[in-house]
Amino acid sequence: MTQVDHNRMANAIRGLAMDGVEKAKSGHPGLPMGAADMATVLFTQFLKFDVAALDWPDRDRFVLSAGHGSMLLYALLHLIGSPEMTIDQLKDFRQLGSLTPGHPEHGHTKGVETTTGPLGQGLSTAVGMALAEKMLAAEFGKKIVDHHTYVLASDGDLMEGVSQEAIALAGHWKLNKMIVLYDDNGISIDGPTSIADSVDQVKRFKACGWAAEKIDGHDPIAIAAAITRAQKSNKPTLIACRTTIGFGAPHKAGTNKVHGEALGAEELKAAKENLGISLEPFSVPDDVLKAWRAAGTRGAAARQEWETRLGELGSRKRAEFERRLRHERPAALAKAFKAYKKELLEKPMNAATRKSSEAVIEVIAGAMPMEFLAGSADLTGSNNNKAKSATAFSAKTPKGRFIHYGIREFGMCAAMNGVFLHGGFAPNGATFLVFTDYARPAMRLAALMGTGVVYVMTHDSIGLGEDGPTHQPVEHLSALRAIPNMRVFRPCDAIEVAECWEIALNRTDGPTVLALTRQNLPQLRTSANENPCQYGAYELVAAQGEAKATLFASGSEVEMAVAAQKQLAERGIPTRVVSVPSLELLLAQPKERRDAIIGNAPIKVAMEAAVRWGWDAVIGQDGEFIGMHSFGASAPLNKIFKHFGITAEAAVNAVLKRVS
Amino acid sequence: MTQVDHNRMANAIRGLAMDGVEKAKSGHPGLPMGAADMATVLFTQFLKFDVAALDWPDRDRFVLSAGHGSMLLYALLHLIGSPEMTIDQLKDFRQLGSLTPGHPEHGHTKGVETTTGPLGQGLSTAVGMALAEKMLAAEFGKKIVDHHTYVLASDGDLMEGVSQEAIALAGHWKLNKMIVLYDDNGISIDGPTSIADSVDQVKRFKACGWAAEKIDGHDPIAIAAAITRAQKSNKPTLIACRTTIGFGAPHKAGTNKVHGEALGAEELKAAKENLGISLEPFSVPDDVLKAWRAAGTRGAAARQEWETRLGELGSRKRAEFERRLRHERPAALAKAFKAYKKELLEKPMNAATRKSSEAVIEVIAGAMPMEFLAGSADLTGSNNNKAKSATAFSAKTPKGRFIHYGIREFGMCAAMNGVFLHGGFAPNGATFLVFTDYARPAMRLAALMGTGVVYVMTHDSIGLGEDGPTHQPVEHLSALRAIPNMRVFRPCDAIEVAECWEIALNRTDGPTVLALTRQNLPQLRTSANENPCQYGAYELVAAQGEAKATLFASGSEVEMAVAAQKQLAERGIPTRVVSVPSLELLLAQPKERRDAIIGNAPIKVAMEAAVRWGWDAVIGQDGEFIGMHSFGASAPLNKIFKHFGITAEAAVNAVLKRVS
Repeated sequence: MTQVDHNRMANAIRGLAMDGVEKAKSGHPGLPMGAADMATVLFTQFLKFDVAALDWPDRDRFVLSAGHGSMLLYALLHLIGSPEMTIDQLKDFRQLGSLTPGHPEHGHTKGVETTTGPLGQGLSTAVGMALAEKMLAAEFGKKIVDHHTYVLASDGDLMEGVSQEAIALAGHWKLNKMIVLYDDNGISIDGPTSIADSVDQVKRFKACGWAAEKIDGHDPIAIAAAITRAQKSNKPTLIACRTTIGFGAPHKAGTNKVHGEALGAEELKAAKENLGISLEPFSVPDDVLKAWRAAGTRGAAARQEWETRLGELGSRKRAEFERRLRHERPAALAKAFKAYKKELLEKPMNAATRKSSEAVIEVIAGAMPMEFLAGSADLTGSNNNKAKSATAFSAKTPKGRFIHYGIREFGMCAAMNGVFLHGGFAPNGATFLVFTDYARPAMRLAALMGTGVVYVMTHDSIGLGEDGPTHQPVEHLSALRAIPNMRVFRPCDAIEVAECWEIALNRTDGPTVLALTRQNLPQLRTSANENPCQYGAYELVAAQGEAKATLFASGSEVEMAVAAQKQLAERGIPTRVVSVPSLELLLAQPKERRDAIIGNAPIKVAMEAAVRWGWDAVIGQDGEFIGMHSFGASAPLNKIFKHFGITAEAAVNAVLKRVS
Repeated sequence: MTQVDHNRMANAIRGLAMDGVEKAKSGHPGLPMGAADMATVLFTQFLKFDVAALDWPDRDRFVLSAGHGSMLLYALLHLIGSPEMTIDQLKDFRQLGSLTPGHPEHGHTKGVETTTGPLGQGLSTAVGMALAEKMLAAEFGKKIVDHHTYVLASDGDLMEGVSQEAIALAGHWKLNKMIVLYDDNGISIDGPTSIADSVDQVKRFKACGWAAEKIDGHDPIAIAAAITRAQKSNKPTLIACRTTIGFGAPHKAGTNKVHGEALGAEELKAAKENLGISLEPFSVPDDVLKAWRAAGTRGAAARQEWETRLGELGSRKRAEFERRLRHERPAALAKAFKAYKKELLEKPMNAATRKSSEAVIEVIAGAMPMEFLAGSADLTGSNNNKAKSATAFSAKTPKGRFIHYGIREFGMCAAMNGVFLHGGFAPNGATFLVFTDYARPAMRLAALMGTGVVYVMTHDSIGLGEDGPTHQPVEHLSALRAIPNMRVFRPCDAIEVAECWEIALNRTDGPTVLALTRQNLPQLRTSANENPCQYGAYELVAAQGEAKATLFASGSEVEMAVAAQKQLAERGIPTRVVSVPSLELLLAQPKERRDAIIGNAPIKVAMEAAVRWGWDAVIGQDGEFIGMHSFGASAPLNKIFKHFGITAEAAVNAVLKRVS
């Protein structure tokens, strides 16, 4: 620390935050003003980073879970000297194309570890980062991987249910290098938090296996002491920092008036006078800026030392470490897939796609055993995504590569985002497809940030049978396909399963859903030279002669389409079958390819044990759809498809009706 | 209680549950066997009900949050003598069309208070029931409304994040008549819960304002004593009942082997022998059945006394009470809507639809002030769904009709389901449309059960501006439309807002989303004789001459379509504008009406600031779509629509391109 005192450095954050929001006439000044002391202590005394290499793999992570307070992070990035975060960027807060959007966006702004704003998720994603650190440290050693994960969380983060899933996991895993600074300002948008909450957070976190204490969030000495204690704890730590929202604003501080809107010229002036800072907008005194810039390079020596240690690791291990962090797949993977598909052609596998997925997982885990990180929200035996060789991860077995997340779908998917963002792993997580609803907010952030995670979603239709409509997805395929940058695959047999897995693993700029059946399916494919799933759809069975009808189907309904095609051919009606493992990927193809796959047959029938929503793009409003028009029902497999009229016969009749 | 001892009564549940699962070869015997003691104590000594009137308004509610243990509930309903729950129904467990589906379904089986299975939600829905009880008791008096809400919850319920939202609300509201029996068996599907959890639930609940204690869940005296203490508490109570899953099964009890599959003939036989019950499937000794049947009518006298008290309430108040419980709207409501729409025609309102919705809410609250129950997940000032006359609900002000739910979207929507199921209120809850992702599991259950709740979802597009892509819905309209029985309205002006609200309030067999803008919109409608929103879409502007183009639009884009229509008309291209407040409702119309609304104009353009997914059903795959093809961006309103090419000019150009 320099001779410039703490208060002046913290006030620099406050001034920039007030000015940024004021100029934008929009934003949240209250949090940056209230949390400036915590942030100053953390960034000037504790956070391990080097502004010259904000992506240094062994940096401490800092997650602003309360993403609405984005000006705190942008002000910090400017003050520590991130080259791209100029004062002009702060002036362009919340403007089109700036590096300073309303909420921090990972991949858009350097130094933003994860996209935050949807509350609860920063904290939950950070759990994944701390998890990845623990696993990677156990594998590559503390000399290479040894950093903390800090989170700044708000009341709202802790009210969101996902926070419970996250803190339960962090406590259970003893992620002692995770330290949460809770900006306990007692104010939310609607007013004092007491109108909606009376949880004792310290007690709650302790009940979940955390160390937890309350301090004065404006006392830099108390903050530093608490962080020091936290670093020594064998548990994750919550530091509840009692703060005043909008600290410094003489009339609005401590009220919800300073939460989500600009202070206004008058209050801004009064606040600056009160804090003793220049009225000039966006100005930081030279000595204060110098002190901040010095903080920005505090970690330079540590980083150099780390680089040296990395060099000493040995070229092979170093290359492996760096490859893993780049999310590059090992060369062995493509070969393994090729050999496996050849094997399938020689010895076809008739099995539920969740079971053929299990076989693929053995292939993948063989090629990349330490980076392939699977897990399930307490449905391991049903989701079939555990490799035989994988052992369970726990606090005591950090080299385990299978994670029992408990019944926490949202927490699982948020943690996977954090694991991916941290780097070093290809995470996949599993539950029933219907429970993507629980995890959807994290899946959306995955698509928005472009994290290459894989969701193994089994029991993908009414075909799961007896569990009934609460467990039978009907709208989920459609609802997931609607998310930009989300890829949804519903493979029809063992070969498609392998192909979809291969695409998913090589997709490192966005997430992939694999929708898999509970029930058995035959292997339909008889060749595997290229991977036609990459186009979303392809002709699986050609018509004999000019096609009068095309049957489009995905997953378990492809078998029915193939049977229907045969019956139709026997009746002299040339019919094609197009397998559609990914409807939205088909629609995203260049028009020429898309039209060629869809074809010109006058009769178009789509088959999918799910709602029609989205299929009209292929079959037209007047096309025939054989699928679900309601929720499902509890019944055995052998009754349920017939009950809902999803059969080969229905497809045959739909075509015959149109032919005559 | 009769002379038949507790154990034999509890074992009757165990026997039926084992037999039901065994016959179905599918299901969950472990929970009913483990929880049989709790259930027996509760149903024979505490639960206030009368099997002759399972819908008695002042009955205690019993929610089996652990819905996978459905055989517990079905066995209880049979034993207490619910006429429809015959022994044949138990034999038809999990079969097509039976009253005994895999998970309990409200509306399908009498005595099932809410649909459960998706974990965490039974508990959270029950919070809404207890909330409704408290509000209704304050309004109609303890003589009419005075009952408990009991929940049987599992490990999984408490691992799900929504449980935190629910228990925080229940603790804050001091819902002391809510009593949760936690089946603490330490086993989940994957194995011992210790592989994924180390939360001290008693401490956690206490931190949230609950009374909480641990007992032996197989000791009937301890269970009864704990429930008695809970009834006297001024807080909601958690009773953590330590149990053995699959109690009685000699080899599988206490393991995950008994969680989710049939015992198998051998273990079933051994379990029955161990418990000392008949090997004959589905048999209950006469004296045991008699004792259970006596328990079923235990509450008959109490119900008669209640009927007497209801009669003494006065005919007007009684009629009001009964109307409210039937979810019938007061006659004043339709009149108020009619008068309000007339007023709007005379004095048009140019305002954001969230603001015109606020005006409608004044109208509604005027007509039904005590049953219209609004609330917001901490965005009250942004969602604009608080009537001026409504005061905040709290433990001390139970007549308040506005609920500050805190930042708990999922908890809010689950509670609303419970409020509706309890009866007496028309609940609506608000947040930003993008955060429907957080609440989606409860919204799905609302659609599945058919609860008439209204979701006031503001900030419905990129039009919210600076908050950026984390807060801008693009796929949400489509994803919600895909849910069966969900109605989604996106009104374009103040009159449509009133019309959509009226439809939503009169829809008491399913939920409705109102998607509303942050930004201002002009009033476009000039007549309001009928309510054309009921068809999902209608011609807002007719073409002058035979239409060459039809512009379809919803919400904020209707204004643009109207402007484009004018420009096209000036260029001599007759164009219609069809306003589409509800796309899925349009598509559900009889073909003739749907075709008439869509029309035959050769050029079809759809405009919606959201993804195209679903619109092809109207415009065809080759139709022009002006909307979003990616996530949004952080920028002011005046820049953002132009940036994404969603403008009247874009619509004009799309038509011109096709005309030439």
